Amino acid sequence: MLYADRLEDALARVGNPCLVGLDPHPDSLPEEFSAARSEGASRSEKARAIGDFCCTIVELAAGEVAAVKPQSAFFELFGADGAREWERVVACAKQAGLLVIGDVKRGDIDTTARAYARGLLEGVDALDRAHTCDAITINPYLGGDSIQPFLESCKKAEAGVYVLVRTSNKDSKLFQEHGSPLLYQRVADMVAQWGGELTGACGLSSVGAVVGATHPRELSELRARMPRTPLLLPGYGAQGAGAADIVGGFLAGGRGALVNSSRGILFAYKQPQYAGLHWKDAARQALTAMKTEIRAALKLA
Amino acid sequence: MLYADRLEDALARVGNPCLVGLDPHPDSLPEEFSAARSEGASRSEKARAIGDFCCTIVELAAGEVAAVKPQSAFFELFGADGAREWERVVACAKQAGLLVIGDVKRGDIDTTARAYARGLLEGVDALDRAHTCDAITINPYLGGDSIQPFLESCKKAEAGVYVLVRTSNKDSKLFQEHGSPLLYQRVADMVAQWGGELTGACGLSSVGAVVGATHPRELSELRARMPRTPLLLPGYGAQGAGAADIVGGFLAGGRGALVNSSRGILFAYKQPQYAGLHWKDAARQALTAMKTEIRAALKLA
Repeated sequence: MLYADRLEDALARVGNPCLVGLDPHPDSLPEEFSAARSEGASRSEKARAIGDFCCTIVELAAGEVAAVKPQSAFFELFGADGAREWERVVACAKQAGLLVIGDVKRGDIDTTARAYARGLLEGVDALDRAHTCDAITINPYLGGDSIQPFLESCKKAEAGVYVLVRTSNKDSKLFQEHGSPLLYQRVADMVAQWGGELTGACGLSSVGAVVGATHPRELSELRARMPRTPLLLPGYGAQGAGAADIVGGFLAGGRGALVNSSRGILFAYKQPQYAGLHWKDAARQALTAMKTEIRAALKLA
Repeated sequence: MLYADRLEDALARVGNPCLVGLDPHPDSLPEEFSAARSEGASRSEKARAIGDFCCTIVELAAGEVAAVKPQSAFFELFGADGAREWERVVACAKQAGLLVIGDVKRGDIDTTARAYARGLLEGVDALDRAHTCDAITINPYLGGDSIQPFLESCKKAEAGVYVLVRTSNKDSKLFQEHGSPLLYQRVADMVAQWGGELTGACGLSSVGAVVGATHPRELSELRARMPRTPLLLPGYGAQGAGAADIVGGFLAGGRGALVNSSRGILFAYKQPQYAGLHWKDAARQALTAMKTEIRAALKLA
């Protein structure tokens, strides 16, 4: 079954479009994972602490949301030890029935892109497939021929990609608003085109787009430019976007988009409203609050 | 000493601007490394074969060129096993006195970019610093605030970055030629600006740019737009650019640019003119030929 349809099914089961981002900033982890930032800990121990933390979040998220989005950078921080933990976290999320969207933002020329796509989406053997991602984020700067190898892997492995279109950071305008039409509009048009041959039975494509929820005015415009493209909306919570800001990214019935929150859930225990709670209870309550807010904003029964 | 000055010294020692790209395509490796593509080999054995191959190339390159450029994708293909081999290859190149430019093309928002920069350029402890890169390639699509964390690491760790400006692939025009000025020209102007505070005693910056040698007409123009920016020119050899094509990227005296060849050296044994030679001799002769051609094109004595 194409990724688009697998995602649609998973979303129908949980009844909400929330995506939990696994961004294990070592400095923000609860005390029981403080080995991640301890000068006395080896790199392997540091990496294990972030892996343990993420696997605990995965347990909290299982059954509650359709997918998690591990952020590669926080694993790569610990080199080969981090890579080992990345695989453990991905495998643990897949075993828990969650889809895994690897936030890796890769992009390179032909045969190189092919190696990234194969490693991240296909795996080199049966054992390796325990920790391939269901989808990954990719960067479009290099052009169409750099995207093709990822689309081929999407066909082979029933996987998905989310192409960076409009990112959630403050200075995303520097190049993304270059030219007329704006560069991000041009990229959006190409994403819609690339997605054509990977459209599932659900009517949506396996080729998605990353559009920051921090740009609410543009969301509806980009939704219209990419009518069959599943969107991944980062920026909710810690980056400043609220439930009202994300509505324009959705199709009727709350379909067609995932809303990501990372720090807002993982490190909820640091927020005043969750003071005194165990970090896991804080994370659980923050996730419940996010689900409630977003379902209300989308007018889901 | 700033990366810009370390690079300048290393180039003065070897007297040529050639860069050896370590792109261990499993399907192209010589027979003695065929474990990399063997169905019977474990992922760990496959990864070890590409690591062994790259370390052998490093031995050939030591003393002959200033730097090598390992391509992350071919290591990531083998997951955590590949990450272990990446570290072995980087450490082995550094021990051999070569500078290491990690071709990783990373790019992400603020704290995430910070984690990439720290992991790849700074290391988390003393042991880890045995396999950090001297410089890495990065992708500018996310804008200026996504570049800053890398610049900070360049200051702390005396490291460098090469920002993708104009890539060597056929379809690079799709977005890179968008708008007026063209997007790649706009990116080039920003690269020159970002490099200002990282200019070394040699007059060049630690903030470089990737400009495909497959676009010779644009090289001189980009050289003029970025007068203090060290260029990394991919595309020589297997991708079609010749020695005459790269001249415009240089400053007087053959300074200011590195010319990369990967497949043209690594897999020289597959080319008709090296038929019958051991793969190592073929690689050695191809590197010598490249050095001779480029020194001649640059009129170096």
